[in-house]
Amino acid sequence: MTSITDISGVYSSAINCGIKKDKLDLSFIYVPGAVATAGVFTRNQFCAPCIEHNRQALKSGTIKAVLINSGNANVMTGDHGYESVKFATEKFSKILNLKPEEVALAQTGIIGVRFPLDKLEAGLPKLLEDPKARNGEITAKAILTTDLVRKEANKTSNIKAGNMVISGIAKGSGMIAPNMATMLSFIVVNANISQGKLQAMLKKSVDKSFNCVSVDTDTSTSDLVLLFATGEVEIEDSELEILQDDLDFVTTSLAKQIARDGEGATKLIETNVIGASSYEDAFQIARSISDSPLIKTAIHGEDPNWGRVIMAVGKVFEAKLDVKNLDIAFQGQYILKASQPTGLNREQLRELLRSENIDITVNLNLGSHSARFWGCDLTKGYIDINTDYN
Amino acid sequence: MTSITDISGVYSSAINCGIKKDKLDLSFIYVPGAVATAGVFTRNQFCAPCIEHNRQALKSGTIKAVLINSGNANVMTGDHGYESVKFATEKFSKILNLKPEEVALAQTGIIGVRFPLDKLEAGLPKLLEDPKARNGEITAKAILTTDLVRKEANKTSNIKAGNMVISGIAKGSGMIAPNMATMLSFIVVNANISQGKLQAMLKKSVDKSFNCVSVDTDTSTSDLVLLFATGEVEIEDSELEILQDDLDFVTTSLAKQIARDGEGATKLIETNVIGASSYEDAFQIARSISDSPLIKTAIHGEDPNWGRVIMAVGKVFEAKLDVKNLDIAFQGQYILKASQPTGLNREQLRELLRSENIDITVNLNLGSHSARFWGCDLTKGYIDINTDYN
Repeated sequence: MTSITDISGVYSSAINCGIKKDKLDLSFIYVPGAVATAGVFTRNQFCAPCIEHNRQALKSGTIKAVLINSGNANVMTGDHGYESVKFATEKFSKILNLKPEEVALAQTGIIGVRFPLDKLEAGLPKLLEDPKARNGEITAKAILTTDLVRKEANKTSNIKAGNMVISGIAKGSGMIAPNMATMLSFIVVNANISQGKLQAMLKKSVDKSFNCVSVDTDTSTSDLVLLFATGEVEIEDSELEILQDDLDFVTTSLAKQIARDGEGATKLIETNVIGASSYEDAFQIARSISDSPLIKTAIHGEDPNWGRVIMAVGKVFEAKLDVKNLDIAFQGQYILKASQPTGLNREQLRELLRSENIDITVNLNLGSHSARFWGCDLTKGYIDINTDYN
Repeated sequence: MTSITDISGVYSSAINCGIKKDKLDLSFIYVPGAVATAGVFTRNQFCAPCIEHNRQALKSGTIKAVLINSGNANVMTGDHGYESVKFATEKFSKILNLKPEEVALAQTGIIGVRFPLDKLEAGLPKLLEDPKARNGEITAKAILTTDLVRKEANKTSNIKAGNMVISGIAKGSGMIAPNMATMLSFIVVNANISQGKLQAMLKKSVDKSFNCVSVDTDTSTSDLVLLFATGEVEIEDSELEILQDDLDFVTTSLAKQIARDGEGATKLIETNVIGASSYEDAFQIARSISDSPLIKTAIHGEDPNWGRVIMAVGKVFEAKLDVKNLDIAFQGQYILKASQPTGLNREQLRELLRSENIDITVNLNLGSHSARFWGCDLTKGYIDINTDYN
């Protein structure tokens, strides 16, 4: 199992329709028998017109298909942006014999450039030549922008009615910060579950996965996660916890893949803040560490400048801290215990940072709350990619 | 007038005492007749031991001298850090015939490395060979860390009792973010004013200057601004506004110099948010734009990707916005009016960004509040400087 279309009743494919020069830029996912669909969207106040459509669609029923384009975010282009969404969702739904409110639209790419509707119109019949195509791997590739690698995750659990399978894909890379980042993720589960339950599970899962990732602190206007349930396998209430666990596994895996493939990134940094007196304190401190350019550059240079971790903890002004009783570990090795250096020398510390997977743990020694956050190092690659996007 | 020691009754000099290899690393400012001293300090919860001393000193009376070292922040080194502060302030005050609570200590540099007290002890007599030295320019240089240039500003106003002169110096460069950043600033005015009034004026001034600068969103453990009043020139209550204006002029000039000389920076970016329904909204949006790595890299590449400005405005979730009525201007030229592109083409836009001084103005068209924030572009230079500090 490596693809969303390995799940029965899930169809997908992708083409190049000319929005990008020659890369795949238009794809669809079609779940005709979907019994429930859940969605979480960007909190950016300038959200894309497609996000407005999706919010409405989610309210009015079950979304059964999504059309996805990369290369153009269709944001801030005035009335044309809204007209484009209407046109695209109408054309797309018509071909699949659905209502416009039964389809979602996901758009990612540059902001403020008029969407090339003609290319979409010309491409749609080709894209949907076989609406029951099962090319999930191609779609995983088509949704990427500056990502270097495909992001896929899946999990299978044996429940009473059979195998419950959950499979997802994602894109990330830049403009990635909590509350949905420039990221898209599409997940499918073959369980039979109500819309309300599915939505609650997705929200919970996203809060501890995609909302705990930051590549660059910037939050996109276009982010979304959609979760379709095909209804194939009956799930009992007592088994919902398994679904939540499996969903968390998939979203967490995709979130980590996004951090690892952040623009220019060479290292995945996982920050664990433990012993906090509240989850909010733990979360804000984990985020502060993940976001700090000085920590990100130090990790990149394998420079064990742990003073910068101290700085990043202390700059969360509102968090409860005991400044005389802080522990810091790199790769599980304590560097600071009760706010006193443990005596590792610089070479020993430097050795800890040689890995591509960096773990920073901070124990506040105050309570039982914890949070986890994923980020990446800050490199010249990020500067290269973002100094001239076009 | 270019130096703090051009003000009568202000003495200063600097030496190398060996904390740094060969650069100036130890300096003092001595204002024996100070009638009032005001101070503002970092809000980082892991503040340096010297900051704790300074807060106490400020409460107990008028600070008449400050000892400044670069190369070592003396933070998170356990009890030795506190002992070092006690030792340094005692030795320093004794030579000047002051009490320890009449002197301040400012320390900047690496965190977590034991402070070399022996070097300080050996250096102090040499530093204070002539306590009435007037080498203000040398001190402006000695307080620098990774800064490339000296930061000085001054202003003279003619008031009834004579010329009121205010002169200041600063260091900045990295770990620079609101609430005092890794920055030190020392300012002197020759006015006769009470401690209470001086403190209120400094706080007000810092909030709109140093607290509106961000190089990299990171907030140091060691920042401080000290303002000494020599008492030479009488100032009437009706003239206090002139002092506030002049002080604002000096702190704003120093703040801008810090942003312009941010680590790796090639451009100063001034963001003006106008038409906001509250100052807090204007400030948070100006800060969000200044802090955005995607805007900082776009400006560096002279890439007029204004969609990123939209993104940075919209990611301030709490701010009141009318998403259909936003104006954005680069260098005073409107790119977006009422959320619609004004039709400037890419080459015209790119031309606007050729300058070393970039002005971004955002009008929220909602009210009469505004805020200004200074930052800089994000370059490979920042990565170089921070991947290996030692």
